[in-house]
Amino acid sequence: MKELKEYYKRADKYSSAVSLLYWDMQTYMPKDAGHYRAEVISEIGTYFFKIMVDDILGRLLETAQPQNEIEEKIVSVGKREYYKYKKVPPDLFQEIMITSTMLEQKWEVAKPNGDFGEVMSLLEKLIELTRRYADILGYEDERYNALLDLYEPGMKAKEIEQIFSNVKIFTLKVLEKVESLPKFEDPFDREISVDKQKEFNNWLLHYLKYDFNKGRLDVSTHPFTNPIGLNDVRITTRYIVNDIRNSIYSTIHEFGHALYALSIPTEFYGLPIGSSASYGFDESQSRFWENIVGRSLAFWEGIYGKFVEVIPEMKEYTVEELWRAVNRVQRSYIRTEADEVTYNLHIIIRFEIERALINGELSVKDIPDRWNELFKKYVGLEVPNNTLGCMQDPHWYGGNFGYFPTYALGNLYAAQIYEKLKETIDFDNTVRNGDFEIIKEFLREKIHSKGKMYEPAELIKLITGEPLSHEPFVKYIKEKYSKVYGLEI
Amino acid sequence: MKELKEYYKRADKYSSAVSLLYWDMQTYMPKDAGHYRAEVISEIGTYFFKIMVDDILGRLLETAQPQNEIEEKIVSVGKREYYKYKKVPPDLFQEIMITSTMLEQKWEVAKPNGDFGEVMSLLEKLIELTRRYADILGYEDERYNALLDLYEPGMKAKEIEQIFSNVKIFTLKVLEKVESLPKFEDPFDREISVDKQKEFNNWLLHYLKYDFNKGRLDVSTHPFTNPIGLNDVRITTRYIVNDIRNSIYSTIHEFGHALYALSIPTEFYGLPIGSSASYGFDESQSRFWENIVGRSLAFWEGIYGKFVEVIPEMKEYTVEELWRAVNRVQRSYIRTEADEVTYNLHIIIRFEIERALINGELSVKDIPDRWNELFKKYVGLEVPNNTLGCMQDPHWYGGNFGYFPTYALGNLYAAQIYEKLKETIDFDNTVRNGDFEIIKEFLREKIHSKGKMYEPAELIKLITGEPLSHEPFVKYIKEKYSKVYGLEI
Repeated sequence: MKELKEYYKRADKYSSAVSLLYWDMQTYMPKDAGHYRAEVISEIGTYFFKIMVDDILGRLLETAQPQNEIEEKIVSVGKREYYKYKKVPPDLFQEIMITSTMLEQKWEVAKPNGDFGEVMSLLEKLIELTRRYADILGYEDERYNALLDLYEPGMKAKEIEQIFSNVKIFTLKVLEKVESLPKFEDPFDREISVDKQKEFNNWLLHYLKYDFNKGRLDVSTHPFTNPIGLNDVRITTRYIVNDIRNSIYSTIHEFGHALYALSIPTEFYGLPIGSSASYGFDESQSRFWENIVGRSLAFWEGIYGKFVEVIPEMKEYTVEELWRAVNRVQRSYIRTEADEVTYNLHIIIRFEIERALINGELSVKDIPDRWNELFKKYVGLEVPNNTLGCMQDPHWYGGNFGYFPTYALGNLYAAQIYEKLKETIDFDNTVRNGDFEIIKEFLREKIHSKGKMYEPAELIKLITGEPLSHEPFVKYIKEKYSKVYGLEI
Repeated sequence: MKELKEYYKRADKYSSAVSLLYWDMQTYMPKDAGHYRAEVISEIGTYFFKIMVDDILGRLLETAQPQNEIEEKIVSVGKREYYKYKKVPPDLFQEIMITSTMLEQKWEVAKPNGDFGEVMSLLEKLIELTRRYADILGYEDERYNALLDLYEPGMKAKEIEQIFSNVKIFTLKVLEKVESLPKFEDPFDREISVDKQKEFNNWLLHYLKYDFNKGRLDVSTHPFTNPIGLNDVRITTRYIVNDIRNSIYSTIHEFGHALYALSIPTEFYGLPIGSSASYGFDESQSRFWENIVGRSLAFWEGIYGKFVEVIPEMKEYTVEELWRAVNRVQRSYIRTEADEVTYNLHIIIRFEIERALINGELSVKDIPDRWNELFKKYVGLEVPNNTLGCMQDPHWYGGNFGYFPTYALGNLYAAQIYEKLKETIDFDNTVRNGDFEIIKEFLREKIHSKGKMYEPAELIKLITGEPLSHEPFVKYIKEKYSKVYGLEI
């Protein structure tokens, strides 16, 4: 086991370097350095891939003698990943890396004009490569499942389809009810300087007891969390002058991711079990802190004093008014700005499209039409251009097919975990008093301390005694939004 | 040749990653991440070393068919380095890396108390390893030459000893003359906020036309320049509230290094000729901009307006008074704060000590006594503690023996280059008008465009027609300081 662990820990150094190269690219890298940086990431990323499929690792995995459950998991998770990726030719892996890096750069340029024609041919190539990749990885039932498994191990598209269908029906009902109500004034519709936003966001992270000795808060176009190394998990946010909500909820969201990464046991670090259980579970933690904690009335009661101290002009609103304003439900174009009720509709559209693309039932050129058609059908809006439509997110242009559903799954896991948590603590009081350590301890014990030892389906059952279900989410939304809108949802 | 070039360019990606890991460690890395970061740097650094001594590279070098002078240089410089490092066992290389990283961390802690006992045993180990390293590399005359050659290819200790002896005699004479004069008031002896210092330093880099699309200015304890990748050369400075000179001259100094790195032809990038000619030549560029340009009266005439705009309380001084104040000559303890006249004395002390250490004529435990004895003899001050004495610089504790002399060589190269430059342009007028492009063009043509094609001894002769000599430096100091002090030096 010792040799196996050392092998993984040595390999992780290359992964750590790639993480820093990526973080720097998104934060501080000078403009002209991008081209070379892409080459460096591709070279070291591919080398890391090669280490992870090397015959030596295979032998170490086959001859390892685990002495306890943790070591058994290291070997079983290690084997699962080794044999999965082993089949993939490094050349294909590198071609996907290079194509997606090139396409992502093209997309960045083409996005503001919504020029889908600019990205079409490279996207076709990337999807072709991704299909080959999926075929090599192998799957049951449909090709899309091979990709889904990369982000949400064990999860099947059929299962997601069923859950999403329930979520969709419920969401459309809520939306209808809410829309019949008169609109309230939006207290956040005003300019607040970046300096003040920075001050408040930094305070917020200290309030949540984010450990600045093990992380940082920086600025990037798309907020993200990056575990760069042991004791080094950094987050970014973005400051939009006329909507401070954006920075606040980006910061809390990324805090949730960072807390997870920082709470995985140090002795798991660099090993196959040393990361989050799945992308969906990772998202459950960010969405839990962003929405269930951060958008609760109790949380606003806790931060209201500081908030109006930093931004005195907000004093004219009561804490309830501010709380309602961070929970307004409305049809909108941009996923990352969507409220927690309509958010899942944005995901369902993406899920249906990428599933069809990968399974060969939709061609690339038809993406914009299909997007606009589904958007009209689910969200109820006419999409005016691709910038607000199928070109808004980087995922497809960066080659991440199978990733989107995990966002909605995260919402569902979060609600299910929340229901369990409420059985053991007085949630509102705890949040109101800022006693976050109690909540963190629950999350650590139930989720973070397990690392990647269990597949998400096992883990949610271990935590809650139940398989994943849309019901806790429906219940949570009903309860909360009945209060927000003062009527039975 | 194509395969050889590609090999080098692939290898450079790992060197680029190490550079970023190091830059981040000195600027933005969270406190607790240091231990793991040292391991990542050691792992990837050692892998880079292995690539550079791999048999495959040897075969590519032996079978390459250069078609022109540049390609010939790539092969000859490549071979020189390959066969030099090939002899070094990777284990020894890695042990030196780990020991020096550990020692440097120990030194950081022990330095404020000047506790030499804390670092002694690891320093003994590191010097033992370094001697073995030098023996493996091979040398003529004395072991120290093997290390010198790493920083200043082709240079011998005997040669340096001779030049330094002349510099020393001259310096002591100047110092005596200057000290008989009455002291003038120091206009810089006042607090200037970091914000104002930042504003001025940023303006300064724009004034010098540093390309912010290819670099950055950040803050670190010890200012440095880091070529991280193609089109990515970053500099740092430090802000000391009660001495703005420190940030200004650190920034200009590092600008000089960065300009060199950014002006080496792109087609040399990643190849054996794709760096500066030597550490001494690199330092000649930073010292040229810092002292010969930046501490000239003409330069102050150019920046005076902006300087007193940002720091209005400085208006009470004339440009001549400020110029004199950035050129005061005095005995002092700290190398990095020494004026350009006494600076070389600090280097000579270090040169004598490290030469004796490596050649086996001095033991580690005797370093503090020897330091204090030489300091009294040359600089004329009693050293009160090791913080102001033999523990002030990181070099020895980071394993960089043979590096120090290049600082003084840089001063001499710079003066010799300056003498040549003055033959072709009206230096004072050019600097006064901020026409730096004319100076940059000269440096680019004569120095930067050559990369590492020539050894420093060849290069200085190519540029000036003469071998390295202390005379241009003596002449430069005499002329300048006769004006600064208003008497014949």
